[in-house]
Amino acid sequence: MGKVITGATMSLDGFIAGPEESGFDLLFQWHGNGDVEIPLAGADLPPLRISAASAELIRHEWEGIGALVVGRYLYDLTSAWGGRHPLDVPTVVLTHNRPADRPEDDENFVFVTDGIEAAVAKAKELAGDRNVVVNGGQMARQCLEAGLLDEVGVELVPVVLGGGKTLFGELAGAPVQFDGPVTVVQGSGVTHLRYRVRK
Amino acid sequence: MGKVITGATMSLDGFIAGPEESGFDLLFQWHGNGDVEIPLAGADLPPLRISAASAELIRHEWEGIGALVVGRYLYDLTSAWGGRHPLDVPTVVLTHNRPADRPEDDENFVFVTDGIEAAVAKAKELAGDRNVVVNGGQMARQCLEAGLLDEVGVELVPVVLGGGKTLFGELAGAPVQFDGPVTVVQGSGVTHLRYRVRK
Repeated sequence: MGKVITGATMSLDGFIAGPEESGFDLLFQWHGNGDVEIPLAGADLPPLRISAASAELIRHEWEGIGALVVGRYLYDLTSAWGGRHPLDVPTVVLTHNRPADRPEDDENFVFVTDGIEAAVAKAKELAGDRNVVVNGGQMARQCLEAGLLDEVGVELVPVVLGGGKTLFGELAGAPVQFDGPVTVVQGSGVTHLRYRVRK
Repeated sequence: MGKVITGATMSLDGFIAGPEESGFDLLFQWHGNGDVEIPLAGADLPPLRISAASAELIRHEWEGIGALVVGRYLYDLTSAWGGRHPLDVPTVVLTHNRPADRPEDDENFVFVTDGIEAAVAKAKELAGDRNVVVNGGQMARQCLEAGLLDEVGVELVPVVLGGGKTLFGELAGAPVQFDGPVTVVQGSGVTHLRYRVRK
């Protein structure tokens, strides 16, 4: 059985998006500042070009991913990533209402309308013995609150955004303690940190 | 000439104090979870007991500190640390009004009433060729905004506080980018990160 993991690129002051969806250029500089090319699935996305240290970690982790859980907001914001998620795995979209243009689930997107536990269960079924990755923000918050989350990954970048969207949103039950970091990898302009959720 | 540095123990979600001055027990667990004892100056404070990795870094850094700059809020909150700051160096207190019980400056505390630039200048004078450390929060914010800050140190701990006081408060001019981390040291339950401010 795989693990349930959330992860995000985060500013030094704790934001995964700046005010009014700004700051992505600064947050994701590490996606383009290295020598190792990692192709992405989906339509028209340039490959990542990251440091060797980042690439070694990220490649290993991506191979372990069997399915994703994202919210409807991100699905809409990215226009369904042009048809398939860049990580090239089936993606469970938690939503109140199935999109009108997607009457059926397929190998790219599965829609779940009855809550985070059902979404994670569906993703686990799709992932088999590989891991489920849950998107940061509201999805991660709901997973952590429901006791479904096993690990948290933070790609910490040296920028102060001053506001925006946080990794766990308006988390109920804070403070919450993690164990670790169990992994610390220094890339170029990014520090990869991995924590375990205490059960 | 020394550097001007700020540093703080910070939660994974970016807070140096939790809601209503809570969370210090969680933030500072790393001060008591190791084998290496580091004595503190001042009245009745127990020594730090930190990991060997943390101790090696912290000892080296503390030896380089020549003076501190703190705000009046912290000075009052700690009751002047019982008479001398635990780091055992002269401390410049930025305040609107000198405390009535301190008509004169002495070797422990110097009061500056005409702004952050004057406070840092005074601390540099006291520090000689050693470094000046500026307290996190409002002091760090004012220093960064005034272009006075050279380095930022974060002791990142695996706790989510969900709210509170941030490292740079309500920073004007965000986003701000740093270089680094130039140092990453993994202690026990804490990750020591050091960044350089871009000039």
